[in-house]
Amino acid sequence: MKKICIGSIGLGRLGYEHAKNIATRIPGAELTALCDVDSVRLAQVAQELGVKNTYEDYEEMCKNPELDGICIVSPSSFHTEHIRIALENGKHVFCEKPLDTTVEKCKQGEAIVSAHPDKVFMLGFMRRYDHSYIKAKEKIDNGDIGRIILIRAYTQDPVATIESTLKFAPNSGGQFLDMCVHDIDLCNWFTGGQKPKNLWAIGGCFAYPQYREWNDGDNVGCMIQYEDETMAFLFAGRAAAQGCNVETEIIGTKGTLRIGSVGTDSMLEVLSENGVCRECYTDFMYRWHEAYISELEEFVNCIIENRQPDVTVYDGTLASQTAYRAKESFETGKMLPFEK
Amino acid sequence: MKKICIGSIGLGRLGYEHAKNIATRIPGAELTALCDVDSVRLAQVAQELGVKNTYEDYEEMCKNPELDGICIVSPSSFHTEHIRIALENGKHVFCEKPLDTTVEKCKQGEAIVSAHPDKVFMLGFMRRYDHSYIKAKEKIDNGDIGRIILIRAYTQDPVATIESTLKFAPNSGGQFLDMCVHDIDLCNWFTGGQKPKNLWAIGGCFAYPQYREWNDGDNVGCMIQYEDETMAFLFAGRAAAQGCNVETEIIGTKGTLRIGSVGTDSMLEVLSENGVCRECYTDFMYRWHEAYISELEEFVNCIIENRQPDVTVYDGTLASQTAYRAKESFETGKMLPFEK
Amino acid sequence: MKKICIGSIGLGRLGYEHAKNIATRIPGAELTALCDVDSVRLAQVAQELGVKNTYEDYEEMCKNPELDGICIVSPSSFHTEHIRIALENGKHVFCEKPLDTTVEKCKQGEAIVSAHPDKVFMLGFMRRYDHSYIKAKEKIDNGDIGRIILIRAYTQDPVATIESTLKFAPNSGGQFLDMCVHDIDLCNWFTGGQKPKNLWAIGGCFAYPQYREWNDGDNVGCMIQYEDETMAFLFAGRAAAQGCNVETEIIGTKGTLRIGSVGTDSMLEVLSENGVCRECYTDFMYRWHEAYISELEEFVNCIIENRQPDVTVYDGTLASQTAYRAKESFETGKMLPFEK
Amino acid sequence: MKKICIGSIGLGRLGYEHAKNIATRIPGAELTALCDVDSVRLAQVAQELGVKNTYEDYEEMCKNPELDGICIVSPSSFHTEHIRIALENGKHVFCEKPLDTTVEKCKQGEAIVSAHPDKVFMLGFMRRYDHSYIKAKEKIDNGDIGRIILIRAYTQDPVATIESTLKFAPNSGGQFLDMCVHDIDLCNWFTGGQKPKNLWAIGGCFAYPQYREWNDGDNVGCMIQYEDETMAFLFAGRAAAQGCNVETEIIGTKGTLRIGSVGTDSMLEVLSENGVCRECYTDFMYRWHEAYISELEEFVNCIIENRQPDVTVYDGTLASQTAYRAKESFETGKMLPFEK
Repeated sequence: MKKICIGSIGLGRLGYEHAKNIATRIPGAELTALCDVDSVRLAQVAQELGVKNTYEDYEEMCKNPELDGICIVSPSSFHTEHIRIALENGKHVFCEKPLDTTVEKCKQGEAIVSAHPDKVFMLGFMRRYDHSYIKAKEKIDNGDIGRIILIRAYTQDPVATIESTLKFAPNSGGQFLDMCVHDIDLCNWFTGGQKPKNLWAIGGCFAYPQYREWNDGDNVGCMIQYEDETMAFLFAGRAAAQGCNVETEIIGTKGTLRIGSVGTDSMLEVLSENGVCRECYTDFMYRWHEAYISELEEFVNCIIENRQPDVTVYDGTLASQTAYRAKESFETGKMLPFEK
Repeated sequence: MKKICIGSIGLGRLGYEHAKNIATRIPGAELTALCDVDSVRLAQVAQELGVKNTYEDYEEMCKNPELDGICIVSPSSFHTEHIRIALENGKHVFCEKPLDTTVEKCKQGEAIVSAHPDKVFMLGFMRRYDHSYIKAKEKIDNGDIGRIILIRAYTQDPVATIESTLKFAPNSGGQFLDMCVHDIDLCNWFTGGQKPKNLWAIGGCFAYPQYREWNDGDNVGCMIQYEDETMAFLFAGRAAAQGCNVETEIIGTKGTLRIGSVGTDSMLEVLSENGVCRECYTDFMYRWHEAYISELEEFVNCIIENRQPDVTVYDGTLASQTAYRAKESFETGKMLPFEK
Repeated sequence: MKKICIGSIGLGRLGYEHAKNIATRIPGAELTALCDVDSVRLAQVAQELGVKNTYEDYEEMCKNPELDGICIVSPSSFHTEHIRIALENGKHVFCEKPLDTTVEKCKQGEAIVSAHPDKVFMLGFMRRYDHSYIKAKEKIDNGDIGRIILIRAYTQDPVATIESTLKFAPNSGGQFLDMCVHDIDLCNWFTGGQKPKNLWAIGGCFAYPQYREWNDGDNVGCMIQYEDETMAFLFAGRAAAQGCNVETEIIGTKGTLRIGSVGTDSMLEVLSENGVCRECYTDFMYRWHEAYISELEEFVNCIIENRQPDVTVYDGTLASQTAYRAKESFETGKMLPFEK
Repeated sequence: MKKICIGSIGLGRLGYEHAKNIATRIPGAELTALCDVDSVRLAQVAQELGVKNTYEDYEEMCKNPELDGICIVSPSSFHTEHIRIALENGKHVFCEKPLDTTVEKCKQGEAIVSAHPDKVFMLGFMRRYDHSYIKAKEKIDNGDIGRIILIRAYTQDPVATIESTLKFAPNSGGQFLDMCVHDIDLCNWFTGGQKPKNLWAIGGCFAYPQYREWNDGDNVGCMIQYEDETMAFLFAGRAAAQGCNVETEIIGTKGTLRIGSVGTDSMLEVLSENGVCRECYTDFMYRWHEAYISELEEFVNCIIENRQPDVTVYDGTLASQTAYRAKESFETGKMLPFEK
């Protein structure tokens, strides 16, 4: 069977992960082209992964008739533009989250995607493809926990990577856009598309005062009231001592689900003078390794089977919109209605 | 050594527990007198516990010169008045939480207690005397987790007791006063007395619409911003499928502590077709059994050693004040500053 | 109601615990008399616990007509003799485990107890009175796990107390008699009295070579084949890094039960650079605190209600007999049939 | 870079898994040839995985000069013969466990492998390539737990698959050869190659009496005394209610390691009227999915890097020899020395 030919743009840390997964871990796909502005890095990765076509110009890559799909891992502020170019050249699109960096551009993205209904468009909310989250979603949809009351979602980076985190921070969009956006999408997914009604975001600089310069906190929280009274509490932190911690709880009227509470990176327990200990993930890339593969498998399967994935462009807008509103609440100190 | 003689008022469920603990589990104390308006119940418990003096009139009991201290487990709206009478009759006072049912009466209670500095006054925030909470407090004070970022506190009653819960609900003061008040006191205790700056409370009737009549929800949440930026998220629910669940997490800059996550009532794990399961507490009385004993031991020891306990009348006011403000936020739908 | 008057012999560590529990924690009982060869210690404890009668001569104490029952915590080799004297003086008897130090003396103990069927006799297998073990037993008897296949039982002392352990070691009877005897009794209890058919015991000196002088190991294991094919694996160690660890697993045809896997001394979890940790019990006395109280409550209730406890003198013999056979297997290096 | 070309024999359940992994999950490898006696199955899998060469004759496949290595997943009793043919045709060999079905044939296998030192030979003890087991081995080798005292190893199949288990049972070699052989290899690996000194195996038919016909039990246990006094306790069962359970504990003088205690198939916890539950693996194939990939990656890397893997043909003989001795002990009811 002919493999799905994919071109990928962006060779940052996650861009490389995606490229490598397409090249080596997705049986139905072939990494046919790579694009990056850094020509040295481009040549090096192309050789390592055996990619025959390399481009420094994105549009040129999109014109390659051999390609079926484009994988976008470029800086977030280029996403909408890159989606447009790919779709207009007849390519299926996988785009890393967030959809873009302003709500306006997200809306433009929606319009572009809507105009190409025959092309697969998928946004990289990889948690939806994680084994544990999939099982939770099945149980919710099956009615096992009844009506959802509260979703609690934590996303914590390990303190071990704080230096690179701080370097990236000014361009990250802030905690709400960069971290909570995943949790917001989970709320959207688990509740079946409930809209926020009101929200209030707070936080502070508990260990890293530099976040204040960026109108941000090193640790932030946000409480969301959904239109049907469902509650959500989001917490994001940049420097957890124990490692990477992503933890989600869904409390329902008939039961409660907990994912990764506390997530540990293996089935090993160590009994020592410290007591009984499990080690946590040291890195988000490792935590989501399988989910990153699964989401790309789903993208390729959608192309092969001519269908759309579960996660849509509208999910991307809703998540970004909510995150922006949380950011605004944090900055103004006010509880805000979701709709302006 | 002469035993500390105690008179106890109120023979409801918790009143009976306290009376029995004083009579049988506190070596240094003797349950010398009992008071209740229900003469039949009074006679029955007095016989069972071997108490020689019984009173239907509280003031009369307080005049008994044999008594060293009074244990108040009367309805909450009588607390301040009962504290006053006991103190004016020269007795030490242990008072069940909450301090009283309005902030004004709490303030009056403060004044009365302040006027009798030579008498021990203790409020029944029993969680402070629980083994796990004590260990957490020690670690916090020792600097083990650095600066506190977020306190998350859940208090959930089991669905198994929902019928009696619903009967009691109209007179309970609501979720914030009746349940969250414990969690609010924990925040106060762990942060070393931080004051709330702003708070927002939400919730809904997810399974029991009758709570709407009482301007309350069956499940509620509240986010608190403290003056020093510390965050708190409180959640209270009345009908948890798994049983009684009290769970507290303190996230700090250097580490995180979790108590009762998820608390199970024994060390037994059952492996069956349901997977690997632990059973939860079915009842708060059982969860806190040892803490209820410990707090009364502390009360008696304070009398013997002529010192005041860690938990003060001001803690009682602060907790009630915060809970009332949360209730007001819930009812008005507004984020509110703590100080009016 | 008249309290049950008890005299207690032996004021070692556990003797003191029992005496204190009788004096302060068992509502229906009164510690009326104490006996010990160390007159200074005797006077001191008597004063602390408010005991009016003290004896250096055990038989004299047993002649005190005021006493209803005797609590024996004397050195194990005196147990049979002390049981005899108490019973012949018309007293109910609670005896700390083991029944005695040789199988012959255990058999004599059986005869004496049998001759006084109107007196309560209870052996201190306190695990049978632990909340978690009780729940396990209920589930087994209820058929929840079907037919028992394997019982795995660990008893590990903490390395923190190794110095006192080593001092006590030469007179302890060895690992099988001193530690495994509890686990053997659990097997007896859970299987409903199955008899061992064959057993093989091994072990070694992994950290403390001095055990070799005592024909013992610092860590030992024993596999038992019961007459009905049920299997047991016992493991005892003297120096566990993580603390006191008592852990029991019962694998059945329909399910598996695990108690204390791994037992931690509170509901506190600590998340730090060590990962997610729970602290273990540091001490067996603390682990079994409540069970020690419960077993004495049961003893007193048996006296009051004129009935015999679940744990009998025959259980004591069976446990000792099995432990001795394990010791013999360990010493000879041979797999042995239980019956000689 | 040229891919390593592999031919695979045997398309049973695990044979198919290996074939698929080579074809789709091992970047450096290509599944170039397939061999099976069932020509229909052979054609079907070859088409699905895009394999160009198919053979019903194994020797013919081994003569294909294009192939670098052979993956043997044929019935166990053919292993030695298949190893010989592959090696004599100049191929590297990956062979599924066990090495063969008699100790004599294992010894022949050793001789054949020894005669071809330039060829990679690897035995499929996949647990050595599981993330959790690798971490445990690292900690042991690093001295973190000191000297090993006891290894406890459980291998339990789920009751859900008992029907197919029973069909396969008469040809499985029995519990010791089929299941415990993995645990025996872990003991070998963790202890650094210690030899058994004595062992005793017991067990019974607790739910499936048909095992008695095959001189086997549905649940069996074996205690091993190693030459340096290290102890091992192995337990294997065919019908665990909770699912697939593989659990290994290594108790050392300075700490203890536990892998998969109890292994659950995701990070999901469910809180319901059953308490707090985690679901177990339903299937060994799923439990070891990543390890099966990793072991084949290692095989391919050994070929590429011209080195031998950690697991050798001698490990295969030792494991089989021990398992056979355990089987003999079980059948005779005797404790046996390892060496005849």
